[in-house]
Amino acid sequence: MWRRPLPDLHFLWLAYSTAVSDKRALTSVGIHDIIARRWSPRALDAEADVSETQLRALLEAARWAPSFGNTQPARYLVGVRGDDTYKRILDVLAEGNRQWAHRAGVLLLGCAVTRNDKGDVPYAEYGLGLASENLVLQAVAEGLAARQMAGFDADAARQVFDLPDGVEPLVAIAVGVRAEPEVLGTDRDVERENAPRVRVPLDEFALRDWGTPAF
Amino acid sequence: MWRRPLPDLHFLWLAYSTAVSDKRALTSVGIHDIIARRWSPRALDAEADVSETQLRALLEAARWAPSFGNTQPARYLVGVRGDDTYKRILDVLAEGNRQWAHRAGVLLLGCAVTRNDKGDVPYAEYGLGLASENLVLQAVAEGLAARQMAGFDADAARQVFDLPDGVEPLVAIAVGVRAEPEVLGTDRDVERENAPRVRVPLDEFALRDWGTPAF
Repeated sequence: MWRRPLPDLHFLWLAYSTAVSDKRALTSVGIHDIIARRWSPRALDAEADVSETQLRALLEAARWAPSFGNTQPARYLVGVRGDDTYKRILDVLAEGNRQWAHRAGVLLLGCAVTRNDKGDVPYAEYGLGLASENLVLQAVAEGLAARQMAGFDADAARQVFDLPDGVEPLVAIAVGVRAEPEVLGTDRDVERENAPRVRVPLDEFALRDWGTPAF
Repeated sequence: MWRRPLPDLHFLWLAYSTAVSDKRALTSVGIHDIIARRWSPRALDAEADVSETQLRALLEAARWAPSFGNTQPARYLVGVRGDDTYKRILDVLAEGNRQWAHRAGVLLLGCAVTRNDKGDVPYAEYGLGLASENLVLQAVAEGLAARQMAGFDADAARQVFDLPDGVEPLVAIAVGVRAEPEVLGTDRDVERENAPRVRVPLDEFALRDWGTPAF
């Protein structure tokens, strides 16, 4: 009896604490690594660049997303640190986002084509979501991180990029290399960056009937 | 001069034709395998099951998607071949979708929570798109395939699942094991299943300014 080995609690703790500190998703069954490791940091390295090959990969991933009847409503304005598009996207961000997003190597503005020459495009917002998720997962695959933002002035964006009617700027995305949370400055920002990720439990998310868990 | 070897055209052709036959995305730079291999087949194996572990993985992947202010608007009704939820989802599909989707091992109905007890949820449709892309990519990681459908009767779905106000059924998703295109029956369906995937070119998708390619 005394020979039965105890479970290696130290190892279990190490695995758990590693998962927490890199903010890996905590799931009841394994999920793909790039999905489990994706989260949305604000702390980015103001010196590190996103290479053109990496940036192309992000946009190729988004380009090949599915869409309603292959209508492909997603488009991205692409700014690289130092160029004019980057400056214009940074300028239209909400103040709270500008404070950290100025360290991103790349700033994107995701637009939905809601009307084309065939008329209204259904599910354009949904389609931009499909494409943007591919984009942020490809960022993880590249060793980068991405954070999506709704906090920007859409009217100003329409004006500064002279967007035609039927093109809606819906999301700004900061892409870069992760940095220590301390680059964010205030204790409150560091705390928020280190906070655990939370989600509704699976039994409220996956349903057999409305209000009844599937599992 | 005559010693210079010719490029191995046979090998290039083999690589190209393999990429075409498995419908891998054709990209200017490499992208992650599960993103490159994802497409939306209709030909599914009516005998093959999706295991509970696989199904949980799909839903865990979707659950950990990002969302606006972590509002998490996505929910899924989950039907497994033979159960009541599956039958109800199949019943509300458009006839053209029912003809192939009845072979799926799993049928899902993706809903967006557009209003909760704090009021309207912004970007709920976008958020459901982010979650559903995680779900269909996890399907690829599991060796499965998924096809999203807008063709279903949303009013009937609301009624049959007794969905509360502020919950919008937006997408049905068939998940299963791929089968030969011939299971679809007609020549026209087989031809459509085998057709190459197409997308707008990168220089119309990634822009420095509206109408100006980023690369």
